[in-house]
Amino acid sequence: MLSKAQIKYIQSLRLKKYRQKSGRFLAEGIKVVDELLKQDYITVEEVYALPEWIDQYNRDAQHTALSSVAVSAELLTRISALHTAQPVIALCRIPPAEIWDPKPGQATFMLESIRDPGNLGTLIRIADWFGIPQIVCSPDCADAFNPRTIQASMGSIGRVRMIERSLSACLKDQPSIPVYAATLQGKDIREIPPFKEGVLLIGNESKGLSEEILKFATRQITIPRVGKAESLNAAVAAGIICGRLLL
Amino acid sequence: MLSKAQIKYIQSLRLKKYRQKSGRFLAEGIKVVDELLKQDYITVEEVYALPEWIDQYNRDAQHTALSSVAVSAELLTRISALHTAQPVIALCRIPPAEIWDPKPGQATFMLESIRDPGNLGTLIRIADWFGIPQIVCSPDCADAFNPRTIQASMGSIGRVRMIERSLSACLKDQPSIPVYAATLQGKDIREIPPFKEGVLLIGNESKGLSEEILKFATRQITIPRVGKAESLNAAVAAGIICGRLLL
Repeated sequence: MLSKAQIKYIQSLRLKKYRQKSGRFLAEGIKVVDELLKQDYITVEEVYALPEWIDQYNRDAQHTALSSVAVSAELLTRISALHTAQPVIALCRIPPAEIWDPKPGQATFMLESIRDPGNLGTLIRIADWFGIPQIVCSPDCADAFNPRTIQASMGSIGRVRMIERSLSACLKDQPSIPVYAATLQGKDIREIPPFKEGVLLIGNESKGLSEEILKFATRQITIPRVGKAESLNAAVAAGIICGRLLL
Repeated sequence: MLSKAQIKYIQSLRLKKYRQKSGRFLAEGIKVVDELLKQDYITVEEVYALPEWIDQYNRDAQHTALSSVAVSAELLTRISALHTAQPVIALCRIPPAEIWDPKPGQATFMLESIRDPGNLGTLIRIADWFGIPQIVCSPDCADAFNPRTIQASMGSIGRVRMIERSLSACLKDQPSIPVYAATLQGKDIREIPPFKEGVLLIGNESKGLSEEILKFATRQITIPRVGKAESLNAAVAAGIICGRLLL
């Protein structure tokens, strides 16, 4: 059971200001929580779950002790920040702020004004698939700890380091790093040699990259269009570029 | 203004059964409606929009006459099926059912049990970008005319033909077409020669492709993983494969 005050506290974590105040966020869903319990970068403090989930967890001898509260499906619906409530919700600690320190041979995503939490989460999952260790988000991006970001990241939030900082400030600090900007009028990605090291700049869902940040690009790159769609989803475009240039 | 009965009718179109009964669906948002007004495969019967949107539309001399109803922001919120109401909602006619008739040199997406309308819409947009003219959806996929599918398709629903049919029935009809199945244990996509003609099979978000449908695959293909994510989003995976094999 949860007290009224606890329910209110959990519900408050839907909003960024309360996440920041408490330093906590929510991760929902079996797969996401399972992934977070397997890593130790993000601390899972407590889970709220159906009794079946808790039984299953405790039955697995490999699992370490976990502070858990058995709750009803109805209560999960009340505390869930998602449209479809999941059998388990984890209360997690927001990790300490990171700095961007690209190592030789590493690629970085830099995201400018990505507003949709689902897109941001999908980008975190793509970074994790392609072994990109850090993502720098401009301060007006969706929040990395928004419940929808966490859900779309499918647990990759525990493996990819998220940095919120002005992209131009970061790029000024690393003047010699190659910077690839995804635009609609750059060089065809089929003519760009694969690389391991560098920054991939991805812009806002409808406006793309700003003039200000394009000044830092060493190369503008474009996915050639065969059909008629005006653009691609930002996360899909990032995935396609990684699939051609980081493999 | 809209009557109570009209409001109820529009709201009913959130559900597939009422869309099927009436043969109508809703398209929301400036970009999506704009794209639909530029094509003639899908008929836009009427739009409900803020007066500013209608004024702007009428001011453009290139635009043809359009049946429109000026409504308040508050009413748009009531009739919208999305979480964030848009300045314009179009009432559209569901086009007649299509059959799958792949032409030489054309690729087709075949989607098995893609459940998320957002993923389906993103796949329609990817198909449109890469010039894929038809998508076959298994009957348990999300509905192509779900408001969230339409929104994520960004108007590409007016250019890509959607077919709902058993995938195995379709593939039995075309025994000589190459069938590429996206799985986690296939051949590395870097070793597959690009192709123009064939079927790309994409499976359910968590379960992937069924054994039944994998029997039809002439080749299983896999995006190599560099990092640690367990999988990629289905639409992102399709995009990456198109980016390597259809370009």
